[in-house]
Amino acid sequence: MAFMRKYFAEFLGTFMLVFLGTGAVVIGKGDVLTIGLAFGLAITVSAYAFGGISGGHFNPAVTTAMLINRRMEMRDALGYIIGQILGAIVASAAIRSFVSAAGLATNSLGQTDFSKINSGMAFFVEALVTFIFLMVILNVTSAAHGNSDFAGLIIGVTLAFLIIVALNLTGGSLNPARSIGPAIFVGGTAVSHLWVYILAPEVGAVLAAYCSRLLGSED
Amino acid sequence: MAFMRKYFAEFLGTFMLVFLGTGAVVIGKGDVLTIGLAFGLAITVSAYAFGGISGGHFNPAVTTAMLINRRMEMRDALGYIIGQILGAIVASAAIRSFVSAAGLATNSLGQTDFSKINSGMAFFVEALVTFIFLMVILNVTSAAHGNSDFAGLIIGVTLAFLIIVALNLTGGSLNPARSIGPAIFVGGTAVSHLWVYILAPEVGAVLAAYCSRLLGSED
Amino acid sequence: MAFMRKYFAEFLGTFMLVFLGTGAVVIGKGDVLTIGLAFGLAITVSAYAFGGISGGHFNPAVTTAMLINRRMEMRDALGYIIGQILGAIVASAAIRSFVSAAGLATNSLGQTDFSKINSGMAFFVEALVTFIFLMVILNVTSAAHGNSDFAGLIIGVTLAFLIIVALNLTGGSLNPARSIGPAIFVGGTAVSHLWVYILAPEVGAVLAAYCSRLLGSED
Amino acid sequence: MAFMRKYFAEFLGTFMLVFLGTGAVVIGKGDVLTIGLAFGLAITVSAYAFGGISGGHFNPAVTTAMLINRRMEMRDALGYIIGQILGAIVASAAIRSFVSAAGLATNSLGQTDFSKINSGMAFFVEALVTFIFLMVILNVTSAAHGNSDFAGLIIGVTLAFLIIVALNLTGGSLNPARSIGPAIFVGGTAVSHLWVYILAPEVGAVLAAYCSRLLGSED
Repeated sequence: MAFMRKYFAEFLGTFMLVFLGTGAVVIGKGDVLTIGLAFGLAITVSAYAFGGISGGHFNPAVTTAMLINRRMEMRDALGYIIGQILGAIVASAAIRSFVSAAGLATNSLGQTDFSKINSGMAFFVEALVTFIFLMVILNVTSAAHGNSDFAGLIIGVTLAFLIIVALNLTGGSLNPARSIGPAIFVGGTAVSHLWVYILAPEVGAVLAAYCSRLLGSED
Repeated sequence: MAFMRKYFAEFLGTFMLVFLGTGAVVIGKGDVLTIGLAFGLAITVSAYAFGGISGGHFNPAVTTAMLINRRMEMRDALGYIIGQILGAIVASAAIRSFVSAAGLATNSLGQTDFSKINSGMAFFVEALVTFIFLMVILNVTSAAHGNSDFAGLIIGVTLAFLIIVALNLTGGSLNPARSIGPAIFVGGTAVSHLWVYILAPEVGAVLAAYCSRLLGSED
Repeated sequence: MAFMRKYFAEFLGTFMLVFLGTGAVVIGKGDVLTIGLAFGLAITVSAYAFGGISGGHFNPAVTTAMLINRRMEMRDALGYIIGQILGAIVASAAIRSFVSAAGLATNSLGQTDFSKINSGMAFFVEALVTFIFLMVILNVTSAAHGNSDFAGLIIGVTLAFLIIVALNLTGGSLNPARSIGPAIFVGGTAVSHLWVYILAPEVGAVLAAYCSRLLGSED
Repeated sequence: MAFMRKYFAEFLGTFMLVFLGTGAVVIGKGDVLTIGLAFGLAITVSAYAFGGISGGHFNPAVTTAMLINRRMEMRDALGYIIGQILGAIVASAAIRSFVSAAGLATNSLGQTDFSKINSGMAFFVEALVTFIFLMVILNVTSAAHGNSDFAGLIIGVTLAFLIIVALNLTGGSLNPARSIGPAIFVGGTAVSHLWVYILAPEVGAVLAAYCSRLLGSED
């Protein structure tokens, strides 16, 4: 049953990401720094608390890159991704119950979407920031030249500031599960644009998986 | 007399929590990020400064979970909780003296309360965020897969962002002692609602004590 | 000449404190969190960069407490304190030159002062927050139960949030040298109130030196 | 080909600095704390992710100081600096494409410039803050008394708060590459003032290389 623990750890970490991140947006009503740090440091705390069990992906795009670079078993990938998506959905359900109880608008649950740019540009933004995110992840966790003690902190801080750059363009997802969670409850363009938030991070992650080898991340 | 040192350490850490946290609210008048970080990082600094003596609970709900999972002796529990409540009360007395001297309203001492939601929802919010808080605590301090070097930092950051989510709903207590301190000096609904802030965190903590075992936190 | 290195390290660290802290106030015009973190993290970075040389006091009140608890040699104390005061003065001179060049008011250099409370209350505030500050310092650096790796980080974060609580009351000094630097260039009540900022932190530090022994900090 | 990895690591880290830093300014529209932390923590995350490969300079002025104090080979210096400048230019190109797509002003890409002070004062500010920055870098990475585990964190936090002090005076560059990147796309006074941002940090770095030896950084 050890594998179930891993999937549960992935569920919990992705729950943390969506609960703390979208909660800071719609209930906390924080500024751009607060929002970026809420998402990013949710990954940091989950990495130290639950990462010892599952490796701490909390993101299907991260799981994809780890799979390509053979840092995990193929048979675990599906369980990880299901755990991640369920964690995001349960977190959005909790946030929706809070928002509803507080009399706030239930069509605003911190979903990712874009209105000022077209879908091609949104795809480029999400793919690029996820590429950068995975370049940091794959190198800071590299056995050859990384730093395992600080990795969880560095990965979270990187996510925080990538989100700060992308927030006003695409909402800064970098994570298919994080976008699926709120979209299910909100519908509309959050769903019709969901393909961007599922495909673009995966494209960025695949490119980073190969590109990080140029730096010797898998040596 | 070594046990007195433990209780004094718990007194000091809970004093720090209420002094820095409610001080940031009513005197510092910080934004939501400042308030969340003030409470959270008060736990972090106390954990590194005084946690080596007592384990660094600074919260009766944490003491309850540690007791259930047999990480502390029953005979210490009462001393810990008395130390925590006294620390919170003395901190609120100090904040009240500052507020009074500065000519600010003495009925606003950073007490926890709720007005936009009903008591059932407030109970659910406090129980849920305390459950998440304890899941992080019990796993990041787990001998099996935790990280003792970073535990104090991770626990504080987790508290900070859970408070940011809950602040506009319940004030974000997660800690009976933290709510008792200001309530004593303010009275009114801060006292009549106090049962929520005493019971809900304890319920969340008990559930987390059992649920964290699914992840192997006590292996 | 090794002792000169220590004094120079104390000069540099106190320069950092006043340069980054008062610079964030009068030039950066940051909010309360920015100001608190600027002062606090100046101590953190100086502790890791220069603390290996001198121990990283950067504050005459800290030097006093270390002396009482026999963690330093008496013959070094005067050199430390002179280095600290000179560092603060040179930093305020630099900030004054910036402020003047930018056309800002040269009577506002981030000096500490109080107007809403009387001098007795100001004394109590500064003595109390410095007492708390030294309780954290003496325990987190304790050989018996401290954490030397994280000490510099914890001390700086503690200072940041103590300043956030005290900022609107006394300006949040906790450090005679930090108050002397700007006062020299500003004059007025910043000088006539200077006795509070020199004596109160020292009183808090002396009390903490004895009180921290109850926790076993010097065991 | 190991040397190409080093140059690529320098490219990536400097890309991160300009992408996260200027992105936080022009797209994230963060406050002074957000901007300072975006630049500073970009260095921190790059240092832990890519610093194991190249040493993590991400700044020609840092490379100059490391060269003077014989911490790197002369033959690597040119490759490092080319990688740094290219990284900054590519980052500014990416930010420009985002800004353009979002309908924002393309003459505002987070370039460094000064208008309230004259060029002599701007030179003094940039030289002084870069001198302080290098004093921290050279001592926190000193084999004699530094702390290699925390160095990347300390260097980034130092940069963040030095930028907060300098932001309203010169934009707070401390790094020729960081200023060259946006200037190329913006032109005007960002180019005609570029000599200040190239020469002043180098002067500060050279002075720090010699001055840090007084503290024993190269012992």
